[in-house]
Amino acid sequence: MNSTYFTRRTVRKYSEREIDPSLLEKILAAGTRASTTGNMQVYSIIVTRDEEMKRRLAPAHFNQPMVTGAPVVLTFCADFNRFSKWCRQRDAEPGYDNFLSFMTAAIDALLVAQTVCNAAEEEGLGICYLGTTTYNADRIIDILGLPGGVVPVTTVTMGWPADVPEQVDRLPLEAVVHGERYLDYTPEMIDNIYREKESRDDSLGFIAENKKKTLAQVFTEVRYKKADNEFFSGKLLEVLKKQGFMK
Amino acid sequence: MNSTYFTRRTVRKYSEREIDPSLLEKILAAGTRASTTGNMQVYSIIVTRDEEMKRRLAPAHFNQPMVTGAPVVLTFCADFNRFSKWCRQRDAEPGYDNFLSFMTAAIDALLVAQTVCNAAEEEGLGICYLGTTTYNADRIIDILGLPGGVVPVTTVTMGWPADVPEQVDRLPLEAVVHGERYLDYTPEMIDNIYREKESRDDSLGFIAENKKKTLAQVFTEVRYKKADNEFFSGKLLEVLKKQGFMK
Repeated sequence: MNSTYFTRRTVRKYSEREIDPSLLEKILAAGTRASTTGNMQVYSIIVTRDEEMKRRLAPAHFNQPMVTGAPVVLTFCADFNRFSKWCRQRDAEPGYDNFLSFMTAAIDALLVAQTVCNAAEEEGLGICYLGTTTYNADRIIDILGLPGGVVPVTTVTMGWPADVPEQVDRLPLEAVVHGERYLDYTPEMIDNIYREKESRDDSLGFIAENKKKTLAQVFTEVRYKKADNEFFSGKLLEVLKKQGFMK
Repeated sequence: MNSTYFTRRTVRKYSEREIDPSLLEKILAAGTRASTTGNMQVYSIIVTRDEEMKRRLAPAHFNQPMVTGAPVVLTFCADFNRFSKWCRQRDAEPGYDNFLSFMTAAIDALLVAQTVCNAAEEEGLGICYLGTTTYNADRIIDILGLPGGVVPVTTVTMGWPADVPEQVDRLPLEAVVHGERYLDYTPEMIDNIYREKESRDDSLGFIAENKKKTLAQVFTEVRYKKADNEFFSGKLLEVLKKQGFMK
């Protein structure tokens, strides 16, 4: 297989160079060959190139600089709107206004998104996922004009890399792969799995910078806090209801 | 980019040839380089090779023959169990027992799954996604012994292709891509988007076989029915609650 899988890193700084529209089209077309439930293709991709639209999207992504700094921003949406319209127009009553259907459509959208990223990286482009999409789906819906039946699931910024950042660490493969049955983690296993990560210079830097005692505290007390997670959980469930996926 | 993106097809019949463990390991390792929220890697992969385990999983996937027919079955799970255990062991209180965190973990799992599939296909392997995972997550949890904080999101069967099936159709790229804002579909657009799909021999075959008037009715009345979707939505939400993601 091509080496990009192993050499890739998330790229957050992009050069001024535009992405050729025909290259972007080829990358998106590669994405649409990804597996999709029952070949329903219940997703949509919104392509943002316009500077004003990027400026409007930026706050929904907590003003992470990649949004205005990338030549292309792609918002991947779970979309049962198009499919349901087709059903109604063909004497068929759609039954996709429920949570299972949201998950089906979200899975479709994510498999396409990742194929788009893999194909783009193989071409030398850099990408960054924005997890903020599920936090502020309501604002993204307004900005992009998403109708009922459509929920943004993830966002990817894409461009030619301005630099090659260091590759970040990963847990050992055995930490995330289980044979036959889930082998739950003992305290010793947890120590072993996280040892290398915790001893890295960048991890020690995070701890010092944030004045915490452990790397885990940087996650629970700074980056991904319980209160925030609960607040945005409520918002996201409201969005699913409003967009018609919780009937 | 490599041509596999465009030539790929879902493969449901596999030869007797095993997948070499070192090749599988390389493919899984490629998957673990996929983007993950905050580099938390909140997913797990359960590898099923054992015949008895495949037989036990099969009914949860409505006995689709790929489960027992594939040399390898991979169950991709949203997993905040490992990360939360690490937090607790490091004097940090995890706050990931909520819906937003489930989505975060599900996204991680799906990006890894699709990278695994792309890498496998580049090596000549064939894959098939099983959407049934979200239908019967409760049964899969029992069979694979998944603890709280872990929910199976999708399953992939993998093996060397026994034959090369026909490539299925896709909607035109313009049907799923929107520039700047979502352009909602008019009746004329729906007709144009679905014209080719509806006129294909395989589509006409589905309609006749199922004694329906339109292709859409095959979806709404046979394949993905409202009553089923609602039943499995309730089950899936129960699973999220039981596994500790709805607090």
